[in-house]
Order: sequence, then structure tokens, then C-alpha cells
Amino acid sequence: MAAQTVAVSTDSSTDAVDLGPAAALSCRECGERFELGPLFACASCFGPLEVAYDLPSGSPDELKKRIEAGPNNIWRYAPLLPVPADVADKPNINPGFTKLVKADNLARELGVTGGLYVKDDSGNPTHSFKDRVVAIAVEAARAFGFTTLSCSSTGNLAGAVGAAAARAGFRSCVFIPHDLEQGKVVMAAVYGGELVGIEGNYDDVNRFCSELIGDPLGEGWGFVNVNLRPYYGEGSKTLAYEICEQLGWQLPDQLVIPIASGSQLTKIDKGLQELIKLGLVEDKPYKIFGAQAEGCSPVSTAFKAGHDVVRPQKPNTIAKSLAIGNPADGPYVLDIARRTGGAVEDVNDEQIVDAIKLLARTEGIFAETAGGVTVGVTRKLLEAGLLDPALTTVVLNTGDGLKTLDAVAPTTGPTATIRPSLDAFRDAGLANG
Amino acid sequence: MAAQTVAVSTDSSTDAVDLGPAAALSCRECGERFELGPLFACASCFGPLEVAYDLPSGSPDELKKRIEAGPNNIWRYAPLLPVPADVADKPNINPGFTKLVKADNLARELGVTGGLYVKDDSGNPTHSFKDRVVAIAVEAARAFGFTTLSCSSTGNLAGAVGAAAARAGFRSCVFIPHDLEQGKVVMAAVYGGELVGIEGNYDDVNRFCSELIGDPLGEGWGFVNVNLRPYYGEGSKTLAYEICEQLGWQLPDQLVIPIASGSQLTKIDKGLQELIKLGLVEDKPYKIFGAQAEGCSPVSTAFKAGHDVVRPQKPNTIAKSLAIGNPADGPYVLDIARRTGGAVEDVNDEQIVDAIKLLARTEGIFAETAGGVTVGVTRKLLEAGLLDPALTTVVLNTGDGLKTLDAVAPTTGPTATIRPSLDAFRDAGLANG
Repeated sequence: MAAQTVAVSTDSSTDAVDLGPAAALSCRECGERFELGPLFACASCFGPLEVAYDLPSGSPDELKKRIEAGPNNIWRYAPLLPVPADVADKPNINPGFTKLVKADNLARELGVTGGLYVKDDSGNPTHSFKDRVVAIAVEAARAFGFTTLSCSSTGNLAGAVGAAAARAGFRSCVFIPHDLEQGKVVMAAVYGGELVGIEGNYDDVNRFCSELIGDPLGEGWGFVNVNLRPYYGEGSKTLAYEICEQLGWQLPDQLVIPIASGSQLTKIDKGLQELIKLGLVEDKPYKIFGAQAEGCSPVSTAFKAGHDVVRPQKPNTIAKSLAIGNPADGPYVLDIARRTGGAVEDVNDEQIVDAIKLLARTEGIFAETAGGVTVGVTRKLLEAGLLDPALTTVVLNTGDGLKTLDAVAPTTGPTATIRPSLDAFRDAGLANG
Repeated sequence: MAAQTVAVSTDSSTDAVDLGPAAALSCRECGERFELGPLFACASCFGPLEVAYDLPSGSPDELKKRIEAGPNNIWRYAPLLPVPADVADKPNINPGFTKLVKADNLARELGVTGGLYVKDDSGNPTHSFKDRVVAIAVEAARAFGFTTLSCSSTGNLAGAVGAAAARAGFRSCVFIPHDLEQGKVVMAAVYGGELVGIEGNYDDVNRFCSELIGDPLGEGWGFVNVNLRPYYGEGSKTLAYEICEQLGWQLPDQLVIPIASGSQLTKIDKGLQELIKLGLVEDKPYKIFGAQAEGCSPVSTAFKAGHDVVRPQKPNTIAKSLAIGNPADGPYVLDIARRTGGAVEDVNDEQIVDAIKLLARTEGIFAETAGGVTVGVTRKLLEAGLLDPALTTVVLNTGDGLKTLDAVAPTTGPTATIRPSLDAFRDAGLANG
């Protein structure tokens, strides 16, 4: 296990891998730096590692121009990501630059006057934000010479890894609980990689993957969210970059972000801070709000109780893509919400379904349950006066309603069923309602 | 019925609606011109009407620059579409500018050396090309003062109309056969419009809509694919524009396009011709190939038999989005395939499923059955020597595999199911396979 989990302090190695501006891994707890490699825990304090950068010098205007001339995907931000400069020429799934939808109809319903936007990641290749993080993990795997991509998953991640591995020329082997719904199994299997059902629940799958990563059987394997996690996580920064660029290189005032492990929220904050540091946006305050499902709300529970520690919960919610009971980045999320003047809130399953329908009815966006969580929490925070309706607000939709049809199916159906005749239609009272 | 179907010859009306460069409707059979309006059949010969343009003057380079400076959606081509110049500022679903994927892995498997591309319309807002045509119909409906959007549908179109109506501020009322699968019903209903199940099959639904359109009950209703059809159809031209722009303002040598009604194929040809006429691409030959499912192959049957007339068939195929047994544009498709030196071919259900998996395995693109049809036909045409492997070829994927999971589900599942132990994994023989 040692070789893959324990990091050795960096010295001035000359044959370092080329991951563009990524200079080293650094420990988020003690700050110690390590050479770039497939590492995820600090050798000194076992804290999580993250990518440290030599960010580009030069004027902000030059950098903006360079970005704007780039491709319509996350690789336009290659100068700010742990990827080689020629990344756009390599085979990859090329996610990102999804729509930032000005949600005027939703704003009217919610009473938001300062501008409400939905960042809609259902437009990614496999229709969730996971394509962003996996695309970066692919480039790290390439740099480190891995030939198999792997992960444990219950849905979105499996599809993203399968698709990206297929395009990028990796073997993939994805582990899922053996009793997943058939639709999710099909999505995970269709890309032709190995798909292994594990007799047990998701925790059992995760435990198994941890064993495998330390065993010779897993040699040459890149587990996107384990030994490639420091790189993988950086993919979420691109949400921050895109939101600001799409707002005309402006920070939004308020962001509402879903919390599963909490990684996405912390990396969006990291991305915003980088844009400020580089002078790409004006340095002004912004507030970050976290959104959870009531049935899996360890972070919002801690936030409301004023705790710094997140107590694990056993998830029970329809928002399965957010159902991580022991979120690794929970404490960092609490820090960010408090530091920026934001909050963490949760909504119950009924409110999630209502919010999915509200977003669909007002903006024509059919969101996954995670999108119901963020929209529902936005409504709740507005009602509580914690979100300011006069400020520019961005709400994330990180997935696609087609993947969680079961959430809305019981309450979504035809208005009427009639015989094919004008009389029957007249009787139904639907003409020019 | 008269007011909505019969077109009156145009005179120099001064209060014409503003649909940008759209100058009139013209009959595809006799050429007679009519004022822009919600018309679809020629008053003289009952031929289908299409939009005639005053295309922009000025240099090709100026027009290219104007297009390239436009938004990342179909509105960048507003100067070539029947929409007002400020269309991008109006609420709409904003589809298009989807990925043109360089499919090198698929090319290797198929032996294509001249460059193989997949135009992947699963990236549209509701994940099918229907968003393109509906977006244009929305602007026509707005111009003509309609307040309700309607259609008959068995899937993709219902979702596209529901979503676009929600965003654009129209009421919608969509008609479907009463016994559709629940998933499709949910997708059609979630956007909150009226959804009416009709007791009967799809033909009964269509007949009912034809009655409704001529009745006062349907007054103020825009049926996107009936009385708005001339505008609606123009949305498919954007596929031609995007493909050429994404190839660096070059025509591809060969295109493989699915055939349902045949409208998409004919409008792509129209779009390519416009680009040539405007000098945006070099005038050189291209070949257009049509793709059908064997279980609904009226056009390929006519093509192979050398007929000019398309004899209707009763559809029986898993490619339900292409299952139009009596395709309105069939004769025009035959003309285009013959004129350009292309062909029309079909594949059976097993070949469709194989092709879906081939595309997923090689390029990480999970296509709808219609995408299985185009990829399968591409393979068949290459084997037959009708497609030249040394030429640049573009294959269309017009929809998303998530909407037709049933097609691949019976043959797509886990490689293995094991206990969560390293021994069990070793025994499964999957380590570094």
C-alpha cells in the first residue's frame, strides 16, 4: 500500500511528469509539498493532498484573450488546470462550457430581482458534472502511465468513467453494488468496459476498492476518486471559471452548490480565489451556500449547530447522487460557508420533487434530484432571508432528470386521457385553458 | 380549415411579420410564393411550402466573422434562419453548436482513413436534434401571435416542445398515444404543460391533431410540425452550418443522415447549398447517404428498386424515433441521394444494437437507436464500397441512449458479480485483463 498512498517530500527532480501549471501536491492540513504522483494522503499528517500551481504570469487581459480563444470545453482553462498544454489534442471526453441559463421565469416565481442563473451541467457528455472531474483524472492517469481507469459508483461516476476511458483509450473496470436498478447498470455497462457487481452495499464496494488499491492486483490502476483524487477534484474548479467568464468575467454575489463529499464546493471556492488572484475578476465578496437533502444532511446539521466537526449519518433520501453520509470535505465546507457569510441548508424529498418540477416548468430544465436539492434550498434560503433576492445568484444543476425518473414518475403524468375526437377534447376543458 | 392550410399569393404587404431574412413561403412543387404565415400547403397545387430567403449580401469573410462572434448555439446563424435579428435576446431553449467529435477510434475499427466525425446532438437541451426545429417553431409562433404550442409525439418531440414552451412563456398541449412507456410519459409531462393521452395509436393521434387544427378549438395554436412546419423544418439547416463551420468552413465529402420523415436530410442539403451560394465554403461535390431501419425502410426500398415513388410501410423496429412508414419528404430524399451520388441503406434491429455498442465502446457516445441506425448503415455502406473510406465522413447521432435504454438493456450488463474480496476478484480474472 505504501507506494500509492504515502507521499515523499519533493526535491528538484528533473524527470517530473508534465501536468502543465501543476507544480506539486501539497497537504491541505500541514502544507507539506510532494512531487506530482498518484498520491492522496500526506506522509507526515495523513491530511488530504491537493494540487499546487505555478499560475500563469502576464496581464489579466492577455490571459482572458488566451482563454476566450480556446475550445468550447474545459480545456480553454488548461493554463489553470493540472493538464499538459496540448491537452485539447489528446483523446478525451471534452466536457464543460455548459450553459449558464438566465432563469428569469424562476426568478419571478422566487422573487429574485438581482439576476438568477442556473449553471446546467446536464449538458455534459454523460449529462453530469462528473465528466469534468473524470476528464482531468484521465490526463493524470495518462501522465502516470496507468492503463486501467477504475472507480466505485452508484451511477453518474460509472457512466463518466466508462465513456471517458472508451474515448481516451484506457481499459476501465468499474465497481457497483450488485443490486442497482437496471437502467443504471445499462448506463455503466454500455461503454464496453469491465463492470463488476459487488455483493454488498456501496460501503462494501468502497472498502473493497481500498483493498484493491493496495494490492498487486490493482497495480497500474488509476482509481479516479482515490489515488487520482487530488487531480480529479480540480475538475470542479472549471465550474467557477465558466460561471465567471459567462457572467462577463464577474464574480456572482451568491452561489448555491450541492454537497455530496463537499469536494465540488471547496474546489469552486478555490477556483474563484484563483480568478481573483490572477486579476481575471474584481476582488469582491461572494457568499457560498451548500445544499443537502434532509435524508443525508450531516453538513447542514453541523452548520446549524455551530459545530466544526461533521457527524456521519446513514443516508435515506431520493437524492442518491448526494447520499454520502460521511463527507470527506465536510469541515472545509463549513469553513467556507462561514468565512464567506453563506450557509448550509437542506430540503426533504417532497421539496426536492417540487423543486425539480418548478425548474422544469419555469425554465425547461429537467434536473436530477441533486438539482432539486439546490433549487429547493435556494427557495428555502430566500424565504429565510439568508439569500438576498437583490443580488446575483447562481444555482448549480449537476445532473440530468433522465437518470432519476423514479423521483418524479409517481406524481407526473397526463392531464387527461381521451378518445380521439373533438367532442372528447372539448369536454376535457383544455382548449385555450 | 381554410384559413390555416390554404396559402394566398403574396403581395407587397407592409405589415409583414419580422422573421429576419425570411422573405416568403414558396411551394416546393410549383414555386408559387406566399406571404409569411402559419401555412404549410400551396393554394395552387397543395405542394409543401418552404421558407424563401433574402440571404445576406456582403463578403463571405464578413459573414463568417459575424457568425463566429455569435452565441454558442444556433442563433449564431440567425442571418440564415427565419428568426428576427434579436432572437438571441428572447427566451428560448437555445439549442445547437453541439460537438462534432473526431471519431478516430471508430474510424480505426471501420477502416476509415479520410477522417470520420460524429455530429452528436445528444448534447442539446433535451438531448435530441428536435430542440433545433422546435426552437425555430417557437420564434414563428411568437411572430404569428400564437399562445399555445402543440404537437403529436411519441417521445423526443414532446420533450422538446414541453421544455421550449416552458422557457419561452407559451402554454403547451402535447398529444401522445395513451399507452406510451412510463419513462416517455414522465419526460413529456415534467415541464408542466398539458399532456393528453389519446386512446388509439400514433396514427389516431395524428388524425386527431389534423382535425383540431381546422377547428375553432385549436385557434391560436401553433402545431410545430403542422402549421409551423415550414419554419420548424429550417432548424435542421443548422446541422449543415455547424458541421461545415466545425470542419473549418469546409464541406465534408460524405454525410450519413437518418431518415424519419426525410425532412432533416433535405434541409441539411438545403443548408449546404446555401453555404456554397454565400461563398462560405468552397463549391465542391458532396455525397448524402440516408439511413433507415430495416423494419421501417420505405425510402431505402424505393432507392434500391430505382423507384421515384415511396410506397408506405407499417413500421416494426426498435428505432421508434425513425418509425414513419409514409415519409413526407421521401421523394426529395431519393432525389438528393441520387443527385449527389449517395445512397439509402437500412440495417436490422440486431445491427442497430451492435452499432450503438460500437459507438459507445469506441467513442464514449451513448446514442439513441437512431444513432445506431446511422452508425450501422455507415458500416454497411463501407463494406459495400458505397462509402469511400478515404474521404471525410460525418455521421449524425440525433438522440440520446438514455431515452432508449430498452434497446440495449437485454444484452448489456455486468461482466461479473463477486463477493467483496480480493480472492473473488482474482478468481474472476479481471485484473489487468
